[in-house]
Order: sequence, then structure tokens, then C-alpha cells
Amino acid sequence: MTMGRPLIVTMGDPAGVGPEIIARAWPILATPPGPLAPVTPFVVVGDADVLAAQGQPVEPVLGPADAAAVFGRAIPVLHSPAPAPVVPGRPDPANAPAVADWIERGVDLILSGEGSGLVTAPIAKAPMYASGFRFPGHTEFIAELTIDVPFRGTRGPVMMLTAKNLRACLVTIHVPIDQLPELVTAERVSRVARVVHESMKRDFGIAAPRLAMAALNPHAGEGGAIGLQEVTVLRPAAEALRAEGLNITDPLPADTLFHEEARARYDAVVCLYHDQALIPVKTLDFWGGVNATLGLPIIRTSPDHGTGFDIAGKGIARADSFIAAVRLASEMAATRRQR
Amino acid sequence: MTMGRPLIVTMGDPAGVGPEIIARAWPILATPPGPLAPVTPFVVVGDADVLAAQGQPVEPVLGPADAAAVFGRAIPVLHSPAPAPVVPGRPDPANAPAVADWIERGVDLILSGEGSGLVTAPIAKAPMYASGFRFPGHTEFIAELTIDVPFRGTRGPVMMLTAKNLRACLVTIHVPIDQLPELVTAERVSRVARVVHESMKRDFGIAAPRLAMAALNPHAGEGGAIGLQEVTVLRPAAEALRAEGLNITDPLPADTLFHEEARARYDAVVCLYHDQALIPVKTLDFWGGVNATLGLPIIRTSPDHGTGFDIAGKGIARADSFIAAVRLASEMAATRRQR
Repeated sequence: MTMGRPLIVTMGDPAGVGPEIIARAWPILATPPGPLAPVTPFVVVGDADVLAAQGQPVEPVLGPADAAAVFGRAIPVLHSPAPAPVVPGRPDPANAPAVADWIERGVDLILSGEGSGLVTAPIAKAPMYASGFRFPGHTEFIAELTIDVPFRGTRGPVMMLTAKNLRACLVTIHVPIDQLPELVTAERVSRVARVVHESMKRDFGIAAPRLAMAALNPHAGEGGAIGLQEVTVLRPAAEALRAEGLNITDPLPADTLFHEEARARYDAVVCLYHDQALIPVKTLDFWGGVNATLGLPIIRTSPDHGTGFDIAGKGIARADSFIAAVRLASEMAATRRQR
Repeated sequence: MTMGRPLIVTMGDPAGVGPEIIARAWPILATPPGPLAPVTPFVVVGDADVLAAQGQPVEPVLGPADAAAVFGRAIPVLHSPAPAPVVPGRPDPANAPAVADWIERGVDLILSGEGSGLVTAPIAKAPMYASGFRFPGHTEFIAELTIDVPFRGTRGPVMMLTAKNLRACLVTIHVPIDQLPELVTAERVSRVARVVHESMKRDFGIAAPRLAMAALNPHAGEGGAIGLQEVTVLRPAAEALRAEGLNITDPLPADTLFHEEARARYDAVVCLYHDQALIPVKTLDFWGGVNATLGLPIIRTSPDHGTGFDIAGKGIARADSFIAAVRLASEMAATRRQR
């Protein structure tokens, strides 16, 4: 087992699938089957009693430094109780401040150098908003928490989704399709491309990253016959990025980018909208996709699914994505540390 | 070998990959390897000399009725010469009228009952337009050629793309992404759904078709938080279609529709825009996708690639998609005949 600083896992909404996927993932990660590499130990920030109810051994620790010694026999937890009773499937806004606090504490532990990377189990908007939380999600909250931390490079956050060997990075995320023409600007595309380029080097150890750019319109607009953004926005952005030294393609027809042969041609693809990235990610690997936030002072990954209130507590939530998120954070943290 | 009426294959642009993929496909289809079912014989409408130059035996016939006897030993051709010399990779507008004529003749042979279905090799817009052809493509041309032919049912054309067990049908095709909010209307979505529903029964032999509807916005709009079309257009359309007796879902997040488990839940999916359908189709099977036109008086399929002028004549064009197109037309024609 590698003995770097541990990862920090935040429990997410305790009424969601977070506690059970953490518990389900732990034995698989602590004693990986077959040829899989052992993972960096993790410590959970959250309610130890909720976690203990999931049927795996749980052991409170005083700090991340104790995690490695515990990880082989139990899930190490930095216990911080949820104030209200936790009922699976029934989120309670009374617990939302604790959920936010766990995330904040997780971030602090990375910034203090005690943890090497953050893996966040899912939270849900409604209960968080009901208690005054004002961020669209983890990504923006964590970006805010780290905004005053020095960072050498282009700052994100940029959302990247992975599946198999596909790394798909998003220029826009949760926006209506009507707004794409307005939001897909050369500035946004270029910033995302720079963050991705730098992250491929910093976090993935790729010395000379090859980036692909997806087009917005069918057939990449066919020279302007089916939409103008490729001509007016995307190709000029690609040219300027290449002039800066990035290896990025002109905008390519999105339907030609995701089969195996195409994926082998690039290290990451810049996608312009949610479904352009998420359709191929989830078609290729519905259960094992990971969400990583690039361009922040800290490493952060998460499973690419939500709280699953409808299945929470039933013992049927799959841990594939969480397991993959822990593995990815472990790899990214190791790569960033070595540079 | 089944001995129904033959399929009619149009050669497409003779300077494109059409002749070579037909020649490459013929031995595989005439004497299929392994457990594959034999296919209905086909007869090519086009230039016999161009086809003969592809290295497979070619035999002119007088009509489709002669195709079955010939198909085992040579490619049967209804010879109609290209007026100008054919140079692979160099389309000549002087040949465009012949290319259009081959398609017209192919359609006539289906309408007269001599052929059972049409498989069209690719044509290209530029040389066709240069000679006065005024249709966006095959689909619209064939729709026009059959417009006065009686047809019991909702009339298309609706473009369907297939890959593995995925059948993705398109509400809009070659339009800029800006125009989607305007073009995705309840009327268009409903018409496409009806054509698909009826075609699943008529052409695919599915007694009670299960249709899925893809949403336009990420997360299917999250109840209006990320786009309104799901609430204002798509869900009402789905409700009305169900009231008509169709088994169709409410609009579902497009990224949850294309992995194996999701595909097993429906027979065809109604997609709202080109890349929403083509990304999963080409991610799942880049080389073997087929384009079928639903809701016409005739069966028509085609490979889902273009003329490939850049690779024509080099012996590297892959016939996978054309072979799959012939197989699909054969199956659809057999199913429609049996009803």
C-alpha cells in the first residue's frame, strides 16, 4: 500500500447513498482484488455512527495522520455528527450545515497538507438550499473555499468526466441548450483548454498533452452551412491556442470523437455542453464514470451520480463510480506531488 | 439463400467509395461466413464498367428478375453508363444527372414491384448541386419521388440511425444548434414518434413498440430549472402520444439512454438533434452504423458515411456500414412483405 498522505472523503448528504457506497468501496480499495494497484488510504469526514450502520468496521481517528494505520482494518473517520436524525432517503435541511461543514473541513485538511486529495460523496441541492447554502454544487463551493489560495497556472474550476480512456472536459455545464450560442465564447473555450492542458501535465503526468476540440454544430458546421460558431468562434480560438503552444485540434464533428480509435488520438477533449460530454461518458461506462475538478489548488474528484434518495438505504447502490473516483484522486495526487 | 425479390443498390457518386464498397461487400453477402443468415440478392443500378474495375466479377442483367440467378457468381448490374470519365476521388458534375437517374430508376424498380428495397451508396452535395439537383440529399429526393404513391400510415421521411441494438430516430437533422429551440416542436416530435411507432410494427415486426424520448436539456431540464422545453413541449407531446396509444416515455436525460441496460428498455429512441443520436451511434459502432429512412412507401437504407473522396480508389474504404445497410434492408423488406 502506498503511504502518501491519505485522501479525504466527505460523506455528502447522510440520507443519500454516500455512507453506503463508502462502506461498500472500502474493502475493495483496502484489499484490492487481483492485479489492481493498492490505493492511497482515505479518511472519511462525516458522521461515524451513520457510517457504522453500513455493516463495515469504522474507527474514529483524531486526524488524517492516523488513517494509514487504521485503513487496513476499518474505515477511519473524523467524526462530526449530523445534528438531526438521519433517515435514508429523507434528506433533512437541519443536517445541511453539517454537510457543508464536512466539505469545508475536507478542503482545510488538504490545504493544511494533512490530506492529499478530496473525494466528495454526493449532496443534493434542495436540502442545502433550504438551509441557506448558496452554491450550485460542490465544484463552485470548493472553488470559493480555495479562491485565496495561491495557484500557479490557469485557475478553473473545469469539470472533467472520465470513462475508460476518455477524459471529457466541459465548457458549459448545467445550462439550457438555448443559451449555448451565447455561452460558447472564445474566452470560455480558451480558458477551459488552458486549464485542461496544464492539468494533463500537472495531474496526469502527460508531458505533451494532445487535446481535441468538439464542434458545436452537426458535421462541425460544414464550413458555415450548418451553423457559424465553428467559423466565428471555435476555429479562431483553436488557432490562438496553438499559437500559445497548446496542441489542440480545430473543432471536430462531435460524433467522430468518441469511438475507440478516435479516443486514442487525444488525451482530453474539450466539450461545449453537458450532453456532448455525458452521452459518450455514460454510453461507454455508465456505472464507473468519475467527475474531477481541474484547475484548483486541490485535487478533487467525485462519483458522477447524485444522492440517489430513491435507492438510499436499500443496499442496492453501486460503488463503481465512487471506487473509480478514489482511484483517480489517488493517481492525480501522486502525480501532482511528484512534480 | 432467400429468394424474395432482390434489393436494388444504387451506385452513388461513381468517383466516391460506392463502387468499391459494393464490390467488397458482395462476396461477404453472397456467401456469408459463419452463422450469418444469407441476404436477399441485390442488383446494382450504375455503371458496370466502373464496378468491374473493382476486381470482382460483374454481370449485366436485363432486370431485377435475373439477379437471383447471377448473384452467386457475379454482381448483377443494370448497366447505365456515367457519361464522363470516372476518376476516383474526383467527382464530376457531368456525371451528376446519371447519379440522380440511377436513384430514380432504383425507386421505380421498387415501386413497380421488381425490387424489394433500396440501398443507396453515398452521393455528395457539391457535384449534384453544380448540375442542378435541388434536394438536400437522398432522403428528401426519395421522399419527393414517392410522394404520390399511396401509403397507409404516417408519412416520413424520418431518419433512423442504427448501431448494435440501438435505433435512434431524428426530429431534426442538419440544422445549426441555434435553431433547435425553434424547430423542436410538439408537432415535429409527435410526427416522428408516430412514424417510428408504425415502422417498428411494419418494418421490424415489433407488435408493441416501446419508444423512449430524449430530452433536449441537461438532466431533462430538472423540472424547468435548466431549460423549459421538457415542460412546455416534450412532456405534453409524450402525454398526447400516450393518449393516442403509443408506448413512449416522458423526455429522459439523454445521457442515461444509451448504455446497454438502458437500450434494453426500448425498441427505438426519438432524438431531437443530430449529435444526440449520432454520438451514441458512432461511439457504439463507428464503422457499422446504418441510416434507414422510415415512413416511406419504399424500404430504403444506406451506409451512414459519405462519398469519402479522400480515400476513394485507394482500396482502404471499409464496407462494414454498407454490408449492414444491405442486411437491414433485407430484413425490413422481408418483414414488410409478410404483413
